[in-house]
Amino acid sequence: MQYETHVRSVLKTISWRIFATIITTSLVFVFTRKIEVALFIGGIEAVCKMIFYFFHERTWNKIKFGKKEIKPFVLWFTGLSGAGKSTIADGVYDYLIKKGCKVERLDGDVVRSVFPNTGFSKEERNSHIKRVGFLASLLEKNGTIVISSFVSPYQEARDFVKEQCDNFIEVYVSASVDVCEQRDPKGLYKKVRSGEIKNFTGIDDPYEPPKFPTIVVDTARQTIDESFERVKNHIQKYLN
Amino acid sequence: MQYETHVRSVLKTISWRIFATIITTSLVFVFTRKIEVALFIGGIEAVCKMIFYFFHERTWNKIKFGKKEIKPFVLWFTGLSGAGKSTIADGVYDYLIKKGCKVERLDGDVVRSVFPNTGFSKEERNSHIKRVGFLASLLEKNGTIVISSFVSPYQEARDFVKEQCDNFIEVYVSASVDVCEQRDPKGLYKKVRSGEIKNFTGIDDPYEPPKFPTIVVDTARQTIDESFERVKNHIQKYLN
Repeated sequence: MQYETHVRSVLKTISWRIFATIITTSLVFVFTRKIEVALFIGGIEAVCKMIFYFFHERTWNKIKFGKKEIKPFVLWFTGLSGAGKSTIADGVYDYLIKKGCKVERLDGDVVRSVFPNTGFSKEERNSHIKRVGFLASLLEKNGTIVISSFVSPYQEARDFVKEQCDNFIEVYVSASVDVCEQRDPKGLYKKVRSGEIKNFTGIDDPYEPPKFPTIVVDTARQTIDESFERVKNHIQKYLN
Repeated sequence: MQYETHVRSVLKTISWRIFATIITTSLVFVFTRKIEVALFIGGIEAVCKMIFYFFHERTWNKIKFGKKEIKPFVLWFTGLSGAGKSTIADGVYDYLIKKGCKVERLDGDVVRSVFPNTGFSKEERNSHIKRVGFLASLLEKNGTIVISSFVSPYQEARDFVKEQCDNFIEVYVSASVDVCEQRDPKGLYKKVRSGEIKNFTGIDDPYEPPKFPTIVVDTARQTIDESFERVKNHIQKYLN
């Protein structure tokens, strides 16, 4: 909950008074041509209006009308490992932070590092995504924009998240397994091929592409900047 | 993120102008005794100051100084089933909502109903509490007060939550198993005695009382109102 301090009201009172008294004094002088009258009226006005202005400010601080919160939303990036989810999500996060928004970044790798024992079976993956979705929905409900990047391979879990949230934007970061394997930014595909990792989405575990994604970005054909622009343009309506 | 609309600034401009012009016109009249001069100066002042006041407001809306957020905290109620956690927590929640605070209520029963497959082994209980704690800490970080009521029987999990949060207030709702069983608000103790429920905290599953709770309320000796007052008094320092 935000509120305004008394010091802020005092400073506003002073800044306005300096400004306003110069105008009043000048006006009285122009129309009466009497410098003493102008200064006298200006002086008395300054003192009594300062007091009134301060209480006018404090009264308005109790009035909620016209104080608005930016409409929060949950921006959910889904796609294979190496598709570019985190990179684009980080870009959107930085963009929103610079705009002064309250925003939380949830990333698959980071959240899994907090809960290292989360498994990779269909049930465990879905429970994990559902819990993250619940978390995202509570943040959204309390006025925080959420930028999530999770492989989130199953439609069922993503649908659950969508239902929990008020404004759910599903971004399908599309890139073929071949393209992702060529990039292999974390060296995971290499480990899968050597048999070090099992149940890896796209290789020996399924990925269900979103049926009705809000936005699709194809990082095999678009640059990261182009993909970012596409997402950025879409979220503008929530920021105004 | 909160911001002020232009309509709010326009209304403030008008309300101040009505007020201020009456003062200026009266002052000029008192000192010049010329009603035409007083009205003329008042009129011109009204028009040009309205414009200046509006831009003064818009400029101050861009200045963050003196805009403060209430310091959020995580109020964590722990204790046996039937000790009175939810009742006191609900009271604190209502109190904070009435004060206009942004506050989220997390309750063991409610959260478990969202994730019905959460088990009751030590490991599963702790994972559950840790995930809820992570959620609470993110809400707190984003300016929301969190009121949690969970049996949360293990010190380890509660310590994990404490570490994640900035302002963690551990409220130990103390009442003996006998007292809780006598109350048995949800009929759970009855089901335990009939063998319908297993691994029930306090009966056939351990409860580790907090080593260093921030607040202890003994609902066997204190009324709910007295317990509520105790918690209410403690959180005052965060609300000013």
